[in-house]
Amino acid sequence: MEGMKKINTAPISGMQELLPGLQAEFNRFKSEIAEVFARHGFQNIETPMIERSEILLAKAGGDTEKQIYKVVKTAEAAEGADQALRFDHTVPLARYTVEHMNDLAFPFKVSQIGRNFRGERAQRGRFREFYQCDVDVIGWNTLPVAYDAEVILTLIDALKTLPILSFRVRVSNRKILSGMLEELNLQHLAAEIFNIVDHAEKVPAEVTEKALEELGIGSENVVRITTFSQIRGRRTEVIPRLEALGFTGETFRAGLGELSEVMQLLETQVGEVAEAETDETAGRRAAQHVSVEADMLIVRGLDYYTGTVFETMTEHRELGSICSGGHYEDLAGYYTDQKLPGVGGSIGLTRLFFLMRELGLVTESEAKPVDICVVPISRNEYAAAEELARQLRAEGKRLDVVLSDKKLGDKMKYAAKVARAAVVVGEDEARTGEYKVKDLETGETRAL
Amino acid sequence: MEGMKKINTAPISGMQELLPGLQAEFNRFKSEIAEVFARHGFQNIETPMIERSEILLAKAGGDTEKQIYKVVKTAEAAEGADQALRFDHTVPLARYTVEHMNDLAFPFKVSQIGRNFRGERAQRGRFREFYQCDVDVIGWNTLPVAYDAEVILTLIDALKTLPILSFRVRVSNRKILSGMLEELNLQHLAAEIFNIVDHAEKVPAEVTEKALEELGIGSENVVRITTFSQIRGRRTEVIPRLEALGFTGETFRAGLGELSEVMQLLETQVGEVAEAETDETAGRRAAQHVSVEADMLIVRGLDYYTGTVFETMTEHRELGSICSGGHYEDLAGYYTDQKLPGVGGSIGLTRLFFLMRELGLVTESEAKPVDICVVPISRNEYAAAEELARQLRAEGKRLDVVLSDKKLGDKMKYAAKVARAAVVVGEDEARTGEYKVKDLETGETRAL
Repeated sequence: MEGMKKINTAPISGMQELLPGLQAEFNRFKSEIAEVFARHGFQNIETPMIERSEILLAKAGGDTEKQIYKVVKTAEAAEGADQALRFDHTVPLARYTVEHMNDLAFPFKVSQIGRNFRGERAQRGRFREFYQCDVDVIGWNTLPVAYDAEVILTLIDALKTLPILSFRVRVSNRKILSGMLEELNLQHLAAEIFNIVDHAEKVPAEVTEKALEELGIGSENVVRITTFSQIRGRRTEVIPRLEALGFTGETFRAGLGELSEVMQLLETQVGEVAEAETDETAGRRAAQHVSVEADMLIVRGLDYYTGTVFETMTEHRELGSICSGGHYEDLAGYYTDQKLPGVGGSIGLTRLFFLMRELGLVTESEAKPVDICVVPISRNEYAAAEELARQLRAEGKRLDVVLSDKKLGDKMKYAAKVARAAVVVGEDEARTGEYKVKDLETGETRAL
Repeated sequence: MEGMKKINTAPISGMQELLPGLQAEFNRFKSEIAEVFARHGFQNIETPMIERSEILLAKAGGDTEKQIYKVVKTAEAAEGADQALRFDHTVPLARYTVEHMNDLAFPFKVSQIGRNFRGERAQRGRFREFYQCDVDVIGWNTLPVAYDAEVILTLIDALKTLPILSFRVRVSNRKILSGMLEELNLQHLAAEIFNIVDHAEKVPAEVTEKALEELGIGSENVVRITTFSQIRGRRTEVIPRLEALGFTGETFRAGLGELSEVMQLLETQVGEVAEAETDETAGRRAAQHVSVEADMLIVRGLDYYTGTVFETMTEHRELGSICSGGHYEDLAGYYTDQKLPGVGGSIGLTRLFFLMRELGLVTESEAKPVDICVVPISRNEYAAAEELARQLRAEGKRLDVVLSDKKLGDKMKYAAKVARAAVVVGEDEARTGEYKVKDLETGETRAL
């Protein structure tokens, strides 16, 4: 068969392309996540995939600018390309919120589910076109930190639609370490120190210590920071240990207060979330377990975040964090003077779907696209077959009618490929309206 | 407020961007159409939005090549850009089908709902990024024309989810006029003649006649073609009139046979479709009327179609055809030697949504994103409020919790913007678990 191709028909590398059975599974996750977002009161929006480069690159630099896809209409030189494909949902959301701010109700609870584009180096499991599922809450001038908890609770509910059994949400607040560094007069090394703490988990303790020592901050400060970074647990354990570090500045205290409030709300709800297996969505899976803990190792790489930060681990270590986000002080400072603080989080669905397939958590086997395949024996029964299909569709069923002049055996083979059950419509059935439905897996037949 | 913007935050012209209330309506249409496609046994797929230019331009020329958006990763010259954004669903479907042909069940009934891109001249109501909702059936070597009827019936059901009351599907078959031109030895003028018939409806009869005369085909042939193009009606009227034209060639007879079969299936089903108002989707609207007729004025511009062609008119003449398509002999001749005949049709949802808004058929008024807004009086009731929200979400309701330190009046103002009803959670309610729900439109209060 391959030899019959005249040109290469593979999709560009780094682009997800699924066979229908897997696409159905992907779509199901996507729509279940959308439904959870809606149930939590997030309003869905869609922004164009093409934006002015000026908007996308207002805050650029680093990899973003290198990975961006520019878009040009004719064979003009790309140098001057003033349009490009969005690389995340946050930048277009900032533009959208500024553009429409007079027409939106604040806090603006908004969800976005769609494709974004990054020209990453081609690599297995790295996608150049990928779905992100985002929720954000955007305040007008101020935003209570209680919304940080609300965003996390929403994302937990969304994650529970996935075939994963255990979720551990790790929460911190960047103001705590920022406040420490202020008081230690180490603000000028903040980027480096955040980076070292961010990577601490992936390397042996000696490597982290050595990296901190090499900054020339003195061994006492190295101990302070490593001690800090090892603090984790429930609110009632973590807050006293953080207080015991002996910092008293405003930023540090603010971070502690916010962490305490967010953790209190999360701990109250998450304890109960784990039991909420009567929920329709959760009901059809094995019991899932959700836990939440404060964990000072979580700092998130992006300096974009200014308060709460979180990541989500599962029983599959190899997945890494499957959902993360945080609180930011100002969504759209590049586009407006209006202060728009926010909190948001994101599920990288394309990558997650790929990894779940690798782990065997997703297969296409369950997903026959058709409930009942109607098989007319000859053209004389087409009208009766279509009529039967229409009645069953009105009940919400997914119907296919085999309109082919092939032998019955061939038609049944097709039916078995796409459907769970079949109804053969012959002369008698068409006349009497009495149909039998055959289960194509068990072979059992019963009256329709 | 405008003065506060630092840069232009309007979306690029020709891109749809909706406020949340309208986005919800758009999403509802999109998902109802998707549901109808699924109930008719079409499997949904998604192809990447970026394709190799070689694929997109295999059969190019004309406007397509001029309107295509090329994609470049860095500041390379666009001249050599070998990737571009898809401009329709058909070309990627051809590539997809060839790439995966060993893994698909044929006939492959496939649906695609997504965004496509064309760098059209900016103009009101012309979109550069637009949703298309496509269904196609692709055969392996052969495809019975009964599937032409099936595609049309599917699209009718999809259209019935829209706030439009009357649909008139106009069907023809290109083989009929092709066969006539063969017998008249006018094949060399086929493109011009098809084009004149295609435009006949938009100009006075004299203009059409003059255009035909100017081809130098003789007045008898002008009469033959204008007589032909005026034939329309039910199958039993149209077929005899077409036979009476006196052509006997194979192509002509084949076209007549196909038209007759397709019309017979459609007329049987469509008469009943109009009555099927018990259907859940149709049930909540005024009665809709669907009619179908053979109409020789329909030839479709694209020479891509080789048999059945159709368009769909509504009670709103200004909309033009809102859904069209046809039968094609070979989906992927540029990519493979395997013959893949098909039939497909498409709803241009972005343009249709825009036009429905212009006509006042779509407004955002009905679409409050939240069913119940929970309003805790103070932070002390946050936990009780979240718990109540969780219980109501499990019943499928859309809940929002107002987490703000503002006055109750301000919180209720926000609630009225996003929700249909509100529940205030004070100390007493949190303790007793007895809640009252207030209808925010009527002001009525009742126990929850």
